[in-house]
Amino acid sequence: MSSRNIYEMDLSQNAANYAALTPLSFLERAASVYPLHTSVIHGKTSYTWSQTYARSCLLASALVGMGIGKGDTVSFMGANTPETFEAHFGVPMTGAVLNALNVRLDAKAIAFILGHAETKILFTDREYSETIKAALLLMDKPPLVIDIDDQEYSGGELLGEQTYEDVLQQGDPNYRCFQIDDEWQAISLNYTSGTTGDPKGVVYHHRGAYLNAISNGLCWDLVSHPVYLWTLPMFHCNGWCFPWTLAAVAGTNVCLRHVRDDAVFAAIKEYQVTHFCGAPVVLNTLVNAADELKAGIAHQVKAMTAGAAPPAAVIAGMENMGFSVTHVYGLTETYGPCVVSAPQDDWAELTIEERAERVARQGVRAPLQDELMVADPESMVPVPKDGKTMGEIFMRGNIVMKGYLKNPATTEKSFAGGWFHSGDLAVWHADGYVEIKDRSKDIIISGGENISSLEVESVLFKHPNILEAAVVASSDEKWGEVPCAFVTLKKGAELSAEELVAYCREELAGFKIPKKVCFGPIDKTSTGKVQKYLLRERAETISKVANN
Amino acid sequence: MSSRNIYEMDLSQNAANYAALTPLSFLERAASVYPLHTSVIHGKTSYTWSQTYARSCLLASALVGMGIGKGDTVSFMGANTPETFEAHFGVPMTGAVLNALNVRLDAKAIAFILGHAETKILFTDREYSETIKAALLLMDKPPLVIDIDDQEYSGGELLGEQTYEDVLQQGDPNYRCFQIDDEWQAISLNYTSGTTGDPKGVVYHHRGAYLNAISNGLCWDLVSHPVYLWTLPMFHCNGWCFPWTLAAVAGTNVCLRHVRDDAVFAAIKEYQVTHFCGAPVVLNTLVNAADELKAGIAHQVKAMTAGAAPPAAVIAGMENMGFSVTHVYGLTETYGPCVVSAPQDDWAELTIEERAERVARQGVRAPLQDELMVADPESMVPVPKDGKTMGEIFMRGNIVMKGYLKNPATTEKSFAGGWFHSGDLAVWHADGYVEIKDRSKDIIISGGENISSLEVESVLFKHPNILEAAVVASSDEKWGEVPCAFVTLKKGAELSAEELVAYCREELAGFKIPKKVCFGPIDKTSTGKVQKYLLRERAETISKVANN
Repeated sequence: MSSRNIYEMDLSQNAANYAALTPLSFLERAASVYPLHTSVIHGKTSYTWSQTYARSCLLASALVGMGIGKGDTVSFMGANTPETFEAHFGVPMTGAVLNALNVRLDAKAIAFILGHAETKILFTDREYSETIKAALLLMDKPPLVIDIDDQEYSGGELLGEQTYEDVLQQGDPNYRCFQIDDEWQAISLNYTSGTTGDPKGVVYHHRGAYLNAISNGLCWDLVSHPVYLWTLPMFHCNGWCFPWTLAAVAGTNVCLRHVRDDAVFAAIKEYQVTHFCGAPVVLNTLVNAADELKAGIAHQVKAMTAGAAPPAAVIAGMENMGFSVTHVYGLTETYGPCVVSAPQDDWAELTIEERAERVARQGVRAPLQDELMVADPESMVPVPKDGKTMGEIFMRGNIVMKGYLKNPATTEKSFAGGWFHSGDLAVWHADGYVEIKDRSKDIIISGGENISSLEVESVLFKHPNILEAAVVASSDEKWGEVPCAFVTLKKGAELSAEELVAYCREELAGFKIPKKVCFGPIDKTSTGKVQKYLLRERAETISKVANN
Repeated sequence: MSSRNIYEMDLSQNAANYAALTPLSFLERAASVYPLHTSVIHGKTSYTWSQTYARSCLLASALVGMGIGKGDTVSFMGANTPETFEAHFGVPMTGAVLNALNVRLDAKAIAFILGHAETKILFTDREYSETIKAALLLMDKPPLVIDIDDQEYSGGELLGEQTYEDVLQQGDPNYRCFQIDDEWQAISLNYTSGTTGDPKGVVYHHRGAYLNAISNGLCWDLVSHPVYLWTLPMFHCNGWCFPWTLAAVAGTNVCLRHVRDDAVFAAIKEYQVTHFCGAPVVLNTLVNAADELKAGIAHQVKAMTAGAAPPAAVIAGMENMGFSVTHVYGLTETYGPCVVSAPQDDWAELTIEERAERVARQGVRAPLQDELMVADPESMVPVPKDGKTMGEIFMRGNIVMKGYLKNPATTEKSFAGGWFHSGDLAVWHADGYVEIKDRSKDIIISGGENISSLEVESVLFKHPNILEAAVVASSDEKWGEVPCAFVTLKKGAELSAEELVAYCREELAGFKIPKKVCFGPIDKTSTGKVQKYLLRERAETISKVANN
């Protein structure tokens, strides 16, 4: 080793050879290279990339004029509309942080978040005026409110003194910004939907947003100019960073306010949508849609799914429709997806069911995620890649949050030992693919045996009459816990609890068979995650199926 | 603006949420996710990604055992073989810097470089033993020499005491490395082929190599698992960073020692090559190859070209063969390509000739390059985007070198004003595309009028009998300078100097017509760049064409 390092002499960073990584640069490039390419379509409105850049710059300069700058929070209670998309660029241009709110939260949760985030300005869509109105009443020091007055939506009321478009009018048309000083600077703040307790504020930075935006493209083999349908809410981990991905590949964003099967299929046909993301429940809705909705799609459509392990039956159903499915996995803390069930060449030779089983595993680290392991939660020693030994999923690298806002204790705990603790329990297969067996709290322990609620759900999903299923633990005097199944049947289908139990007996070991069954709708969060804590409460009140 | 920034409280970098950017991580991912996918094919030898990773790790651990570490230089006088590919990973794993030597340099230049780079270990392929032997004799303190004893090549001699494979035997089979501490750390050292004077050592860092590797993929719409043919030398700007790109997309590298039309077409057919890079001279060779060589290719092949502006006729010729051409531009100082003639949707409607004219322009910033401008070389004020006003091309951002090794004065000069000065003269078109008109020193000034040698060359290239052409200034008593054309005719074709002048009279203003013409081979550097300084010397001895 040299005593002097010649590669560190007079070779320092300067303005010519170093720029902070920021997804803002993707927008500037899309606008300058593809100025006339359509960036956003929303009903009768559409914009080009040069217009989207110009509008984002107007937003930024108007915000600067209102005193917004580095370290400030700007919240958006927005639908999947051009305004929310533009906010992903215009807000960070000022140095401020975008806090996209989960529009399905209640007033109390919104008030908590706006207070905790110290929001200076809140933009809010008319659709959510009732919630916001109530939330503002709960606050001592409410933020300045600006309305998003979407002409494509009627209903709700205007709460502030000016609208988003009024604000743009105040912007400087000559303002341009696509660079920042510090790539570690915060870009956005996303509150976990959390099952209990106050939500935690997850902080993303420009570097991570830049890298995950690209990683999304790499793990989906995305090429230039995709047509992307916004079935995923933009407030959900910043739409898994896809607003920035779409700028990087100069694609077209097709906005969608409400995810309904007819609207999704209509958009796919009208705009020749090539890509969309969504929770498995979205895919399930499409698979179970009426045949006439599905007819008439001749082009390849690619879906990316995450948020829960998609039942193999759903993946197979999508493939049967001619849609390809990429299964990814991540958490709010990892900018959304940072693990992908990367397809292997030899999967092409499998049957559709076998392939679906492979795809349903969470997978391997996404292209730009740095490290992933399944390890003992205490010792952090990696488990063997035997497909059996259970451990916790840990990640580390650039696609892990900056930390929780104003919560150093939880931040420190979640990063203990130099890895992010996901809280998800999984096995590690011989081929390096991770498969989630459960959230630690979703494991059912019956008579000392562990039951994976996912395994039971996966069996239920295969039943031809079942649309959706969720399984939780219910306390039991004899066994400690027993599985309780919540089941939604397909339209017009019939199934009794006894028939369901008999079906399970063919597929599952006796101790894994649901001892309680409840038919009807399943409680879900606004992002489509099943709310198991609610189901667990309900399960306690349900009686056992006779002779089971 | 907040007085306290809540986003900078207790949210610092740690092992869980920050990793240095390095292309080594691409290799680890390719090896762990696609362990059995073919990484490298070289004649009868082929490796999988897990083998390539294992071999790179053996190389690294053996080098560490030999005392190599951070800040040391390891030079490779290598052909496009697995060893040179592995060096792109194994050398930087140790913290050392890979210096891939231009194998066509003479002994004196090699001796200069090895001395200047302070090379500790030199790996050398038998093919170049004569040059290396002579170079070592010129050195006071020659490095340790290790032979690459490629079984696919016969000839040359072994110079050292051990071979590359011997060294791998000394490596620790358990050594693994895919991370580094500092992304600003040097990864490679590439000497400019320079037209005069001592070559300059251009230093790349891990961050830039990582980003350009991805940028290559984005600007070529590269998806997983391409089959890439090594027509471009790996020593040329580290093969434009493609060794790292191929790891990022887990592609297959098809090695090629010598670029000959029959070998290229044979490889394309045998391995179903999807992508290759090369200077326009390589494309020109393929376009002019015999029809029987071209026959039998049913799949799409994509070529990326740079190193000189490809004549539109060459691009059109490639397209007529069914090959698509992506034209990129860059310099050694910018990791190879950092500008791309990004195709626009509406180019598809143009005739092949019109499209070729568009493609022949250098283009816009590559996806991950940060900034590009054409500006006045002195004031650095951007020129208008009028397609007429000449200025110098400037770049800045992460895909610009760390600087010149042990050359602070030149480094500083090249970064003056916070931009990298390319030395290339160009116009800026209304659509934002940059078009090179000439290297500053290649402009011919005749009677006070500027003549672009490129413009004259482009006219000559269109002549059906001309294979290649280069135009330089020759001093002239009356005009100051006049254009002198060096022309290589196609096999069997005939053309007199007078006929050439008559042809030019139809296409060019009188003052731009070459006043001197010389038929025969054109001097080129080992990377296919025309050596204009040699041509300029020769031009002085050539007589004018009569009546011209």
